[in-house]
Amino acid sequence: MPTRVKRRSRKAGLPPGALIHVGDKLAETTKITLLDYDESRSQEHDIRTVSECRPYKDRLSVTWIHIDGLHDTHVLEELGDIFGLHALTLEDILNTDQRPKMEDFGEYIYIVLKTFDHSGDQRNEIIPEQISIVIGSGLVISFQEKETDLFKPIRDRIKAGKGRLRKSGADYLAYTLIDAIVDHYFGILELLGEKIELLEESLVRNPSMGTLQAIQHLKREMLFLRKSVWPLRETINSIERSESPLIHETTGIYLKDIYDHTIQVIDTIETFRDMLSSMLDIYLSSISNRLNEVMKVLTIIATIFMPLTFLAGVYGMNFKYMPELEWPWGYFMIWGIMIAIAISMIFFFRKRKWL
Amino acid sequence: MPTRVKRRSRKAGLPPGALIHVGDKLAETTKITLLDYDESRSQEHDIRTVSECRPYKDRLSVTWIHIDGLHDTHVLEELGDIFGLHALTLEDILNTDQRPKMEDFGEYIYIVLKTFDHSGDQRNEIIPEQISIVIGSGLVISFQEKETDLFKPIRDRIKAGKGRLRKSGADYLAYTLIDAIVDHYFGILELLGEKIELLEESLVRNPSMGTLQAIQHLKREMLFLRKSVWPLRETINSIERSESPLIHETTGIYLKDIYDHTIQVIDTIETFRDMLSSMLDIYLSSISNRLNEVMKVLTIIATIFMPLTFLAGVYGMNFKYMPELEWPWGYFMIWGIMIAIAISMIFFFRKRKWL
Amino acid sequence: MPTRVKRRSRKAGLPPGALIHVGDKLAETTKITLLDYDESRSQEHDIRTVSECRPYKDRLSVTWIHIDGLHDTHVLEELGDIFGLHALTLEDILNTDQRPKMEDFGEYIYIVLKTFDHSGDQRNEIIPEQISIVIGSGLVISFQEKETDLFKPIRDRIKAGKGRLRKSGADYLAYTLIDAIVDHYFGILELLGEKIELLEESLVRNPSMGTLQAIQHLKREMLFLRKSVWPLRETINSIERSESPLIHETTGIYLKDIYDHTIQVIDTIETFRDMLSSMLDIYLSSISNRLNEVMKVLTIIATIFMPLTFLAGVYGMNFKYMPELEWPWGYFMIWGIMIAIAISMIFFFRKRKWL
Amino acid sequence: MPTRVKRRSRKAGLPPGALIHVGDKLAETTKITLLDYDESRSQEHDIRTVSECRPYKDRLSVTWIHIDGLHDTHVLEELGDIFGLHALTLEDILNTDQRPKMEDFGEYIYIVLKTFDHSGDQRNEIIPEQISIVIGSGLVISFQEKETDLFKPIRDRIKAGKGRLRKSGADYLAYTLIDAIVDHYFGILELLGEKIELLEESLVRNPSMGTLQAIQHLKREMLFLRKSVWPLRETINSIERSESPLIHETTGIYLKDIYDHTIQVIDTIETFRDMLSSMLDIYLSSISNRLNEVMKVLTIIATIFMPLTFLAGVYGMNFKYMPELEWPWGYFMIWGIMIAIAISMIFFFRKRKWL
Amino acid sequence: MPTRVKRRSRKAGLPPGALIHVGDKLAETTKITLLDYDESRSQEHDIRTVSECRPYKDRLSVTWIHIDGLHDTHVLEELGDIFGLHALTLEDILNTDQRPKMEDFGEYIYIVLKTFDHSGDQRNEIIPEQISIVIGSGLVISFQEKETDLFKPIRDRIKAGKGRLRKSGADYLAYTLIDAIVDHYFGILELLGEKIELLEESLVRNPSMGTLQAIQHLKREMLFLRKSVWPLRETINSIERSESPLIHETTGIYLKDIYDHTIQVIDTIETFRDMLSSMLDIYLSSISNRLNEVMKVLTIIATIFMPLTFLAGVYGMNFKYMPELEWPWGYFMIWGIMIAIAISMIFFFRKRKWL
Repeated sequence: MPTRVKRRSRKAGLPPGALIHVGDKLAETTKITLLDYDESRSQEHDIRTVSECRPYKDRLSVTWIHIDGLHDTHVLEELGDIFGLHALTLEDILNTDQRPKMEDFGEYIYIVLKTFDHSGDQRNEIIPEQISIVIGSGLVISFQEKETDLFKPIRDRIKAGKGRLRKSGADYLAYTLIDAIVDHYFGILELLGEKIELLEESLVRNPSMGTLQAIQHLKREMLFLRKSVWPLRETINSIERSESPLIHETTGIYLKDIYDHTIQVIDTIETFRDMLSSMLDIYLSSISNRLNEVMKVLTIIATIFMPLTFLAGVYGMNFKYMPELEWPWGYFMIWGIMIAIAISMIFFFRKRKWL
Repeated sequence: MPTRVKRRSRKAGLPPGALIHVGDKLAETTKITLLDYDESRSQEHDIRTVSECRPYKDRLSVTWIHIDGLHDTHVLEELGDIFGLHALTLEDILNTDQRPKMEDFGEYIYIVLKTFDHSGDQRNEIIPEQISIVIGSGLVISFQEKETDLFKPIRDRIKAGKGRLRKSGADYLAYTLIDAIVDHYFGILELLGEKIELLEESLVRNPSMGTLQAIQHLKREMLFLRKSVWPLRETINSIERSESPLIHETTGIYLKDIYDHTIQVIDTIETFRDMLSSMLDIYLSSISNRLNEVMKVLTIIATIFMPLTFLAGVYGMNFKYMPELEWPWGYFMIWGIMIAIAISMIFFFRKRKWL
Repeated sequence: MPTRVKRRSRKAGLPPGALIHVGDKLAETTKITLLDYDESRSQEHDIRTVSECRPYKDRLSVTWIHIDGLHDTHVLEELGDIFGLHALTLEDILNTDQRPKMEDFGEYIYIVLKTFDHSGDQRNEIIPEQISIVIGSGLVISFQEKETDLFKPIRDRIKAGKGRLRKSGADYLAYTLIDAIVDHYFGILELLGEKIELLEESLVRNPSMGTLQAIQHLKREMLFLRKSVWPLRETINSIERSESPLIHETTGIYLKDIYDHTIQVIDTIETFRDMLSSMLDIYLSSISNRLNEVMKVLTIIATIFMPLTFLAGVYGMNFKYMPELEWPWGYFMIWGIMIAIAISMIFFFRKRKWL
Repeated sequence: MPTRVKRRSRKAGLPPGALIHVGDKLAETTKITLLDYDESRSQEHDIRTVSECRPYKDRLSVTWIHIDGLHDTHVLEELGDIFGLHALTLEDILNTDQRPKMEDFGEYIYIVLKTFDHSGDQRNEIIPEQISIVIGSGLVISFQEKETDLFKPIRDRIKAGKGRLRKSGADYLAYTLIDAIVDHYFGILELLGEKIELLEESLVRNPSMGTLQAIQHLKREMLFLRKSVWPLRETINSIERSESPLIHETTGIYLKDIYDHTIQVIDTIETFRDMLSSMLDIYLSSISNRLNEVMKVLTIIATIFMPLTFLAGVYGMNFKYMPELEWPWGYFMIWGIMIAIAISMIFFFRKRKWL
Repeated sequence: MPTRVKRRSRKAGLPPGALIHVGDKLAETTKITLLDYDESRSQEHDIRTVSECRPYKDRLSVTWIHIDGLHDTHVLEELGDIFGLHALTLEDILNTDQRPKMEDFGEYIYIVLKTFDHSGDQRNEIIPEQISIVIGSGLVISFQEKETDLFKPIRDRIKAGKGRLRKSGADYLAYTLIDAIVDHYFGILELLGEKIELLEESLVRNPSMGTLQAIQHLKREMLFLRKSVWPLRETINSIERSESPLIHETTGIYLKDIYDHTIQVIDTIETFRDMLSSMLDIYLSSISNRLNEVMKVLTIIATIFMPLTFLAGVYGMNFKYMPELEWPWGYFMIWGIMIAIAISMIFFFRKRKWL
């Protein structure tokens, strides 16, 4: 697992609002897509230079600007200049180590969210990605570290012109984006649920030190997920209760709906955590059980053979006068005694339910 | 246990309010029952097509529509159309993975609850089922995934015309439904209480890896139950404090009563969880105790026979000059010494309370 | 321990307010005692039929009706009829599985409390009992499952006419009853404190599986007690803050006093719980310690005798040419070597502090 | 440790406000000291009979009456009579089993606090003592179970006439008393910190069952301390926020200061609790480690000598035809084989890092 | 680790506001630096005597006085005299055992914060240091125990005259100082993150008693850090919400930004704590696993060789009539039987997955 503490420290000593990208550079280039629509039409542009966005600033239509790739700080600076974003907002967009939050700057609302992806390799880890959304008047700007197809269905729905989306304002678009992000969590949880089930099976079949490490690894992923989803609840709640004129009252009920989904996600995470905890208990007690098994085998063997070996040792002594040695059936008698001892020992263990 | 995360992910990418049934299709067909009553009369109908409900919309009498089976989304769409239900309400009714909640849409109040059933097979698991209740003006619509006889006594009481039910409004009917659901929890808890008692006995008699798994299984069922009952408390509280004109003030005291029952259910669940935790402690320490027992047997046997075998070995040596071997009573003396050693060992173990 | 979930389920399907006694029938008959007093006089009656209480309804004096035994639902129905008790209050009085609570019905205040008794047998278990108190205007009705002498000192004080009691109203009488109940908890806690001390001693002297079960049993009793006392705090607090005209302002400071006592009871219960937890830790680590002891004995014996037995075995071999066997002092030399090995082993164990 | 539940039960059945001393009688006699001062002078009296205090009742100067020893209930009754203390206040002063609290009776403020002392014996236990403070207008009465020199520096400062004390009112004197009590906690914590350090050393050097008991003992003392300090925080907070005219606004900032100290005390207690918990973990795992050590020794000895003894046994057999026995170098060869086996075993254990 | 309870007790008995330095004297001398600036110019002074600060008291420019070294109480007394600091503020500055807090004295705001440094030695421990900040009108006074270069970049930025700093008031300067302190935490967390990773590796490679102690040591450092950062959150929050005219509204958004960073620090600390807890679990179960391994080796050896040694013992007996001994192939037969037993034992262990 990569260290979870990103190298923020190189920001130390810099003035606040200094634009430095904190995080792994996931995307090679910065790609800007602009989608402008109202009830009657929709129009998509691939933007080359940021200044092309300027004409869309004060239109009556809804403008959605989506930026993939955050490493080019100049693009952000220019965008901030055009749309009047605060230096701290730009700093937060670049610092991909944020926890979900919502900030009302009056002119616009700034929202940070986390989404998760699974790495393609066989370790199948979950990888966090930060998504920033700026809601202005008739304007939504979304920022993503790396291009994914998370928002593609929304773009398609806008182009197709079906549903409420084209008829509603920028706040409904922002809601749709957040909804897509929250819905994506359910997919991640299903994946983790499957991992847990596989682990449960291997726990019953063949518990090993590797099982333990897998449990602990999943626990940490849960912890990580939880760290992102708990503040999400608060964030959505504060958007819902915000008195900003940018959020219309009719959107409130949709935000309440996402809020409920978020709580469901949290519930599932907590359930998974509890399941992993009891798997740990089962693992630990299965180790103890196996120790018991091993010790029983040892004890049974020792308890049967020690008296027998002792007896054989006795009749291996070289005393001059040992009457039994002279008896013609002595040897067979001693075999008889030995077998009797062994059988009675086995009966004893049967009674104690060790065999 | 079936995976607890239902396949919500196929909803991803769809617009909010899209009607897709999330959950296992429990019922084969959708069955609609309509019961219309006022103080003087009651009338029951089996509805074939949803449009038959339309005439009952604005009557002064109380109309109770009960739907069994949720997989037919068309039925819901039509019902939503007739009674003016919001798209998100319909979505929530179909999504059977909700946590209990109450939402006031002004025109109507929407309530989601969970009930539990035991599977008939020998595993005797508890199976959750979602019940949605819509309270309108003079109208109650209840939705259930599968037909059970949970609400039968209420239907019978309405038909019989006894008690407050016929004299009261839709909110009292809704209260009666919720009361039936909460009362049903006590039955489930009794069943689980019996399971716990059986487990406690088997824990004393013969603790095994299976006991541990049964404890963990019950713990998980408790967790599951708790996840449903905790928000239930909040839900009933918010119905009680709701200022909706659909809930009359006189119903408040009855809701307070259910609220108390819910807290009792929660208390019992917490008690069961604590009992299961201490059963786990007892299980784990009984494993340690048994290891101690096993090791004591081994140690006693080894401690008695090792010195004896050594002695026998000594007099089995072939040295030319070993005076004891020549003694006429040597052999009997050595037996005497051996028996003395064995007896003193046994005394030593008695003193240490190992025997 | 009896199952803690009382058979409430037979109430399922009945309308709310249905009067069914939930609980074990502790008393054989229902006994009603009426005590009517004001500053100048007091008068006690044994009531045969409930209707005898009717004349005391609207008097200026304070009337205290005490009912022992709840199984006769007719008595309750009639009482409820005379004094205007709500159906849900009657249901709650009969349902002896309530948690402490206070409900203000306007006309009267209904309070449920729990008291505890020790069973007389050698198991010395604590047995819960529910006490309901109804405070009306100039009226206190108290309900108890079984006759005890808990309230006898109060009755005596009223008859003797000493103290504030005779000069004060019904609310002060109710306070005195609650005070008696809360004071009774201290006695129960002393008993449990003694049990814990006995257990601590036996834990040091001779820890066994029985000690563990006794610890767990006490933990469960604590849990049980706690479940009753936590809501009690809330209950007394809500009586104190209640704005009902039935509670005079001057009684407030007395209720605050009981509130403090309740917190003291809770503190003590929490301390006991912590003490029991650390006793569990000590028990578990004493098991591990004893395993260590057992294994040390085994290891010492094996480590001393295995090399010796091996040596004896060597000189028991039958090789034709074994020079040591021919040496005249061979046998004594080998004894010397063996004793040297044994002594050096013992030194080794001394150094490791095993002996 | 003495049982922490004081015999309160003998109060059961008595009316509230009954004056009975609950606690161990720590002092032999009751000693009353009166100190009367204003900005210009201070005067100290040893009071013989309580009525001597009466003239100081309504003076403009500040009067501080300090009572050592609580067993003489008559003294209290008379004091209560002179200064108008409520019966419940007197009861609380005598009941030395209180948790810290503050009660505003209008005419005066009643504060209960706990201080701690170390017993002089070698067990060095901490012993709680209750201090009650009554703040009236120009009056402070303090009650202590046993005479200590806790308040001596304050008395000296008043007599010396330095600092703010002489210039300020009764509330500042009360603050100074509370400050002395809270500062005293730091000394107790240092003592406990030293105990913990000693224990940590003995845990590393030589962990034993006694170490475990010492850890548990300290944990219980922490628990006990914590039980007193947590409500103290609340108490000081409520004095600070109290709107009583007896507390001047200028004293607020000093109370805030004590409040901060209390939080520091709580922080330290929590840190100590965490340290003791991890010491418990270290203790438990050191037991497991030692078991591992013991078992390794046993396994190494057994694994080396069992095959050797077997080999010696083989050549001790008495078969007629055993060719090796006849070989002239047979005996030396077998020694060679045995030594080779032993050495290869030791290499095996080295590789496994057991040696 | 040094004892965490600083010797506060020598303050006991002194009046409140007595100036005594509580803490280790970290700096040899007290060094005072004064920096006076406005938008157009900046001027730095090294102050020899405190009275040199007096002329800067009521200027319109921003004055930043920084004091390194707290042991000289006279310097503080004089400063307090010049700038009107309350005796309790001076006491708090000297008492370096404070938890972070903010106090509004009207004329000025007093803030206590904690920073951490790593000791240079190989133990690489974190060492706390207290920083006090006083914000007045156009004035910031900062107090540090020991000179570090924490604030050097800020001083350089002021001198260079870039950024907002020169244009803004004293509150923005104070914010910049707090920001530097909070940013410094990220460096400490990275260091600790690396320590945890190293520990994780050594846990997998070679867990030992030392690993356990290192885990516990890190846990305690986390605890320690957490104790400082939790109140920091509250502190920054209360500065932000403070209605003091000393904090301008425009600074609010910057304080919100630090608040978010503080929460990120807390999140990381909690994650580290969870990671250390699961490392403890892995450590403990790896001990159990190794015990299992050891016991398996012992059991395998014993189970194979005990029956063989028994057999060899049997044919070492000296009975007169033992037919097998006479058989010419007896010896080779017995070898065959022994090898067969050994092989079947090995197969048995293979089947049980012990080999």
